Amino acid sequence: MPENTYQLYEMADSGNCYKVRLILNQLNIAYERRPINILNGESRTPEFLELNPNGRTPLLILPDGTPLAESNAILFYLAELSASDQQINHSANLVPETPLARAQTMQWLFFEQYSHEPFIATNRFYLHILKDPDQFEAQIAANQPKGCAALGVMENHLGHAPFFSAGAYGIADIALYAYTHVAHQGGYDLSAYPNIGMWMESVQNQPHHVGIGE
Amino acid sequence: MPENTYQLYEMADSGNCYKVRLILNQLNIAYERRPINILNGESRTPEFLELNPNGRTPLLILPDGTPLAESNAILFYLAELSASDQQINHSANLVPETPLARAQTMQWLFFEQYSHEPFIATNRFYLHILKDPDQFEAQIAANQPKGCAALGVMENHLGHAPFFSAGAYGIADIALYAYTHVAHQGGYDLSAYPNIGMWMESVQNQPHHVGIGE
Repeated sequence: MPENTYQLYEMADSGNCYKVRLILNQLNIAYERRPINILNGESRTPEFLELNPNGRTPLLILPDGTPLAESNAILFYLAELSASDQQINHSANLVPETPLARAQTMQWLFFEQYSHEPFIATNRFYLHILKDPDQFEAQIAANQPKGCAALGVMENHLGHAPFFSAGAYGIADIALYAYTHVAHQGGYDLSAYPNIGMWMESVQNQPHHVGIGE
Repeated sequence: MPENTYQLYEMADSGNCYKVRLILNQLNIAYERRPINILNGESRTPEFLELNPNGRTPLLILPDGTPLAESNAILFYLAELSASDQQINHSANLVPETPLARAQTMQWLFFEQYSHEPFIATNRFYLHILKDPDQFEAQIAANQPKGCAALGVMENHLGHAPFFSAGAYGIADIALYAYTHVAHQGGYDLSAYPNIGMWMESVQNQPHHVGIGE
């Protein structure tokens, strides 16, 4: 493998890992996939903890060997880089330029990790990945209204704006799409959120979109 | 109140709100404090939800009236602004300039909100704010090892770097300091983390530092 290739340590079915594949594809950046099965403890081996002491995927190894963790930090990095690196697709401007628009994008990235992912992704993990509704029944029930609250905040926002990244498709949309579009696998009924439905269709129609299973 | 003043909706004892007060002070930005008692439902009134549909503090109203939520997005905004606004203290450079250093700072901001705050701040909320160890005994016990894991990741990082914001004091340090320095109020024993102890002292020695109770 050439040293100047991005390497993505990932679990294919993880929405957090899918975010990184989606932006890499939309920026036309070549990368190697390095599968990590977190269910087998592969994200807690000494070798992996050397790369990411927090023991989580996705982890992106940059061409110079630097490891970068946290899916939304990786989105931010690649989007910022795309504006300055001539080898990267310039037509996709995935992070806004003005300080306020950048901060509003950032606001949704933190919303996603704090108010959305812990309830929507976690219930999907229990039901779709671990396939164990009985063992996690109490947690699933406790998470459900919090996940619905997050979807309600998204539905409300989409009533007066087409996207989450300050008016245009960008990294906040990638971050929120990753687990929203598979929320039904966590027991959420998206038919109650028509604005989210239309937004998901817009996301899927962006150039160079790829699905989570691709 | 003049319209061109920052207004901070906050609960004084919240670490997330303290982050914003600390950076505003270090950048020498004047602001008005607007107390919100989340225990009384004041963050869920129609008036407050109009400003922040996610119903959380801190919420910063910018001088032009724009509301900005999510503590770490606010840190990012004010730090970026400080580099371009002549009215703001230029001597404090709280966010790095190169894309990689910015992304590494961002990585710690997401670590703080996903792997640290939900366990350390939440146990402090049960024990120090609600003062109800019995009702939340199971959650406190479940959170404890995850909070210790986060402190372990910080301790490890500080074994080879003095700060979290890419080598110099900055917004990642503000974000992580806010709940780490009061972790004992959530039942965490910080004496087991000597690197964290030295780092907290360095943070407290930064120019224009203010405490959470000030």
